[in-house]
Amino acid sequence: MSENPVLAEVTRGDLVESVHRGSAVVATADGKVIAGWGDVNRLIYPRSSNKILQAIPLVETGAADRYNLDQHELALACASHMGETIHVERVRAWLGRVGLSETDLECGSHWPYSEASTIALAKSGSVPTPAHNNCSGKHSGFVTTAVHMGDDVRGYVGYDHPVQKRVTQTMSEMLDVDLFNQPWGTDGCGIPTIALPLVNLATAMARCADPSKLSPKRKDAVERLVAAKAAAPVMVSGTGDFTTEIMVVAGGSVVCKIGAEGMFTAILRKKGLGLALKVDDGTARGAEAALGAILKSVGALSDEEMEGLSQQLTRAIRNRAGLQVGELRGAPIGKVAGF
Amino acid sequence: MSENPVLAEVTRGDLVESVHRGSAVVATADGKVIAGWGDVNRLIYPRSSNKILQAIPLVETGAADRYNLDQHELALACASHMGETIHVERVRAWLGRVGLSETDLECGSHWPYSEASTIALAKSGSVPTPAHNNCSGKHSGFVTTAVHMGDDVRGYVGYDHPVQKRVTQTMSEMLDVDLFNQPWGTDGCGIPTIALPLVNLATAMARCADPSKLSPKRKDAVERLVAAKAAAPVMVSGTGDFTTEIMVVAGGSVVCKIGAEGMFTAILRKKGLGLALKVDDGTARGAEAALGAILKSVGALSDEEMEGLSQQLTRAIRNRAGLQVGELRGAPIGKVAGF
Repeated sequence: MSENPVLAEVTRGDLVESVHRGSAVVATADGKVIAGWGDVNRLIYPRSSNKILQAIPLVETGAADRYNLDQHELALACASHMGETIHVERVRAWLGRVGLSETDLECGSHWPYSEASTIALAKSGSVPTPAHNNCSGKHSGFVTTAVHMGDDVRGYVGYDHPVQKRVTQTMSEMLDVDLFNQPWGTDGCGIPTIALPLVNLATAMARCADPSKLSPKRKDAVERLVAAKAAAPVMVSGTGDFTTEIMVVAGGSVVCKIGAEGMFTAILRKKGLGLALKVDDGTARGAEAALGAILKSVGALSDEEMEGLSQQLTRAIRNRAGLQVGELRGAPIGKVAGF
Repeated sequence: MSENPVLAEVTRGDLVESVHRGSAVVATADGKVIAGWGDVNRLIYPRSSNKILQAIPLVETGAADRYNLDQHELALACASHMGETIHVERVRAWLGRVGLSETDLECGSHWPYSEASTIALAKSGSVPTPAHNNCSGKHSGFVTTAVHMGDDVRGYVGYDHPVQKRVTQTMSEMLDVDLFNQPWGTDGCGIPTIALPLVNLATAMARCADPSKLSPKRKDAVERLVAAKAAAPVMVSGTGDFTTEIMVVAGGSVVCKIGAEGMFTAILRKKGLGLALKVDDGTARGAEAALGAILKSVGALSDEEMEGLSQQLTRAIRNRAGLQVGELRGAPIGKVAGF
């Protein structure tokens, strides 16, 4: 793999202790690259950073309207949530309206990403169920679409299941990539994650920021999903999380999503641009700090928003006693001209 | 920072999804470099990878003998343990013999690294105490030395406290680096972590593998600590952990230690060599896979040991349902000539 630039760094005392390299790209809805760092054409697995694209069929098929999904639930369909009560209860209620339950979800179970929720769950003598899985909202969207379209719900995670084929077709259109002919792997929650060039992911995100050239139906679906994420950031991630805080402080002008293995995407609504990045080492902290660096570099945040996000953009690293001993921050990549 | 080579990689489906770059070096007790990858002279913080060096004063001062520390306790003094019952109870018993308790430890508290231990602790309605801190064994060593030497125990984590000065002096001798004049930061457990060139850390580990040129007292202390780690690998880390398994399967011929931010050291006893590595991004998985690659490269493991460690050296990455979807493995760095 070719060398990509340092996008984020971790300090301790006076030294930079660790660095995160990666590639990042900001593009227009026409696929024009506005700014790029490193190899922007590299094949990446988008992982969960593309959840908003995977949720389009839920709205476009009419499934969301049939089951009266509100903005909190549409946001959950695009979420990697922290397994807090607000997420888990909402997933259960939603599935109940569709006539299903979490036993129909094929995402598997894991302890909540939220440490507080894990401790509370363990204290209560319970164990995690599929509703606690960070992907349970996305999977609820899949099974809701399956029921609405008359598919057999079972096996909906499979590459050849109508639910996934619908997602793959929709994403191919949004990405300008024929995903049916791309290499793929299996994501943590069991569904396919299909390889694509990073720049195309930025283009698809730009089409979420500026859907003016999409078909009216696609435009409506995308606008509703973007608006839902902007309206309910805590449903997309969780209390106090980086992704949530970016969306809260940016007042919905930046709608973003982390993905496993160092992925991050952002929809820059005010600018009509899309952003995609991957840190080579696959770390969440690297992806988060890199996102901050790129957002600053392309002027996606106002001075006031940067001030409000100062604790997220430069994060204190503390020892067990709470003393600050270093920081996680975006690398000094400078300001891109023209922004 | 200059580019270091890829030492470990993560696959999913047919693609390499993420990579871990780093530098690594194998050296003799005389400081001769036998093999090196990337920038072996870079300044690193050793973090917990140097715990065996930090434990030398515990033995050398006579404190360990005065309080009848056995091999399990000496191994704990060199440990980043997982907070399992075997670790926590042993720390409490040890401190009791010294006339202290875990409230004297200044390392802070955190939930155990072992998920099972965290869940069990939460289920019991308890919260973590300093004994659960992964560094509680090392800190028990510090306070034991302080009591033995008549130091005021309070503040023993401070850079200028006699306990730390003793550690810094001993490490300076083992490393051939005057640590008193090096930049430093504060480690997660509150003590100083002092910057030094990676190659010197390999040299110090080689002196643990081949202590023949150390003073008789130093040689005895080092030999006892190495033997303790080899005899009680589970006390150095925890049940099923990578570090523990390497030491178990290698039958004590490889005595190793991970450190935060991508550090790893190994004492290659059969070869009389020392190994030190850091992955640039600071990930534990990267450091573990890189260690496997280097151990293979320099022939530190027999074919039989490699077979016994196959699940550690190439680790399955599974989705939430347990299906293998990729792997974490050392990069193909080849065999170093002469081994």
